[in-house]
Amino acid sequence: MKQNLIYTNNVEAAINGIADGGNHNLTVCIADANTARYAPAGAGLITIPAGDENKTLETVTRVWDEMERMGVTRRTLVINLGGGMVTDLGGFAAATFKRGVRFINVPTTLLGTVDAAVGGKTGFNYNGLKNEIGAFAPASDVIISTRFLDTLPVEEMKSGYAEVVKHAMLSDRGELLRLLEHDFNAPIDHENLLERLRRSVQVKVDIVARDPNEQGERKALNLGHTVGHAFEALAMRRGGPVPHGYAVAWGLVAEAILSHLLLRFPSQDVHLLGNFVRDNYRGFPFTCDDYDELLELMRHDKKSRNGEITCTLLTSIGDYRIDQAVTPDDVTAALDILRDHLGL
Amino acid sequence: MKQNLIYTNNVEAAINGIADGGNHNLTVCIADANTARYAPAGAGLITIPAGDENKTLETVTRVWDEMERMGVTRRTLVINLGGGMVTDLGGFAAATFKRGVRFINVPTTLLGTVDAAVGGKTGFNYNGLKNEIGAFAPASDVIISTRFLDTLPVEEMKSGYAEVVKHAMLSDRGELLRLLEHDFNAPIDHENLLERLRRSVQVKVDIVARDPNEQGERKALNLGHTVGHAFEALAMRRGGPVPHGYAVAWGLVAEAILSHLLLRFPSQDVHLLGNFVRDNYRGFPFTCDDYDELLELMRHDKKSRNGEITCTLLTSIGDYRIDQAVTPDDVTAALDILRDHLGL
Repeated sequence: MKQNLIYTNNVEAAINGIADGGNHNLTVCIADANTARYAPAGAGLITIPAGDENKTLETVTRVWDEMERMGVTRRTLVINLGGGMVTDLGGFAAATFKRGVRFINVPTTLLGTVDAAVGGKTGFNYNGLKNEIGAFAPASDVIISTRFLDTLPVEEMKSGYAEVVKHAMLSDRGELLRLLEHDFNAPIDHENLLERLRRSVQVKVDIVARDPNEQGERKALNLGHTVGHAFEALAMRRGGPVPHGYAVAWGLVAEAILSHLLLRFPSQDVHLLGNFVRDNYRGFPFTCDDYDELLELMRHDKKSRNGEITCTLLTSIGDYRIDQAVTPDDVTAALDILRDHLGL
Repeated sequence: MKQNLIYTNNVEAAINGIADGGNHNLTVCIADANTARYAPAGAGLITIPAGDENKTLETVTRVWDEMERMGVTRRTLVINLGGGMVTDLGGFAAATFKRGVRFINVPTTLLGTVDAAVGGKTGFNYNGLKNEIGAFAPASDVIISTRFLDTLPVEEMKSGYAEVVKHAMLSDRGELLRLLEHDFNAPIDHENLLERLRRSVQVKVDIVARDPNEQGERKALNLGHTVGHAFEALAMRRGGPVPHGYAVAWGLVAEAILSHLLLRFPSQDVHLLGNFVRDNYRGFPFTCDDYDELLELMRHDKKSRNGEITCTLLTSIGDYRIDQAVTPDDVTAALDILRDHLGL
């Protein structure tokens, strides 16, 4: 998988450079209601409804139909401009139209930038299952910028930032400490944030390069997600959904605790991380009465096999271990400590 | 693109070898009404309606739904058992379910064996356009046999054979001469035919290996198809559709004539090929009144650019030239000679 990553806050120039560089007959931009205003001049515009509930086959067919109407060919350039929903769905539509039209991603959210836009996963939800249908199809180029983030709600900023923290936990303690000093109330320091994004995305790129089709090592990127997904699903069931990144933040602390219990991950780093998450992500209101349901959700996680709960864990920051089996007792102990730490 | 090709007439043993070799949780066979009876014991069976008119998104979603119901995961083995429609559509469904389930192709028609099953193209018809949506996704293994061909109608046999002839024209005069001696009325000599298939498929494999995503050289495989598609489309418009391979056979002669006119392809070989096609594929009943419509269809062929007609042509057997522009006058001259040769 080869993806050209462009870090810049002059997004328009970067897009024009790509559009001019290829021998394209047409440029088409796929955006949602929130991002259509950023569409480059001169590109045909396909606007899809925003929101994960619209990440459906019906929306995909609407995009295919519009592509047909606009005369998209194998020589067209498609620009996916938006959050993860747009880059996932637009990427799938482009990757399958006439068996593949070149597309680039211009992520406009922090979560989309450090997660969905890079790494080649595309797809949509089907029969109520997230990303159930899709393809591994890399964008030829990804334009990474901070220029869309000034207007991003702080909750979405925090949600994406949890994945940035995750990438540092998988790679570099110095970077992690730098990240944990972040103040979400201060205005964005664009130069600094772009450098943080560069480092964060590179962590994902390096891991994906070693395992493009998710056969093994790519599971490292699931750090925090076994427990995090259980929180996310429980909140959803109870009718009070939480942002994905918040659930991941709590999951990262829980799995850092598990790492401490099972692999001697330093308690000092558990505390540093735990404090940051407590101060910035509130707590997820769960009690010991929820443990059975959380355990059940973890057993049904797609990373699990034969009903065994598996996580990616750390021996220290930067040293991960995939496919670590954890027992219900381990999880219970970790959840106790987590509640204590978050003051629940 | 890596595809393991298995030439055998012990299909069941080959399937079992593949199924046993991987750590699969389940084996699922996709077949149509004609081929379901060949499905291996022990595999879940998904039967789709036969015929190109069912190569639709609706059929794809039915396959996805059945996969869901059967509990297909990333560790399942999917077997596409049928002609090109089954391997194209089943391949797409498998390649996109959970972003990709391993699949193998077991083609049961001659055309499917030497064309659709190998090379990684998958897809379905959309908005009335053939293979408009799809993906480049190779089957991990293709089992090539002659064991399904005894019961194949002679018209389908001839249709596939035209592609076998095409592959020889692209590669090897000795092989071509051998092929032109074939008697469609004689019973199948399985050993000999399997060897012919081995050579034929290898020609496609070698070309695809050099150009997996159809950027250039793969156009060599379009030999005979610029003119052939025009015949096919004209017949369809007039309500008397002809088998694809018949149109290709006529197209091969027409483009051999063009090759002679423009690239000094030897007239002796035009005659050998022309006689074989005349004797085995009847003639397509067209007159000079149809030339304008045929030219118009060639201009709209997806291989054409800017309204120019382009073909793959030969300087001699085995030496092809892609992207050869031909003028309406060239085509008209070739069609005149073709009609003469076929006795129309």
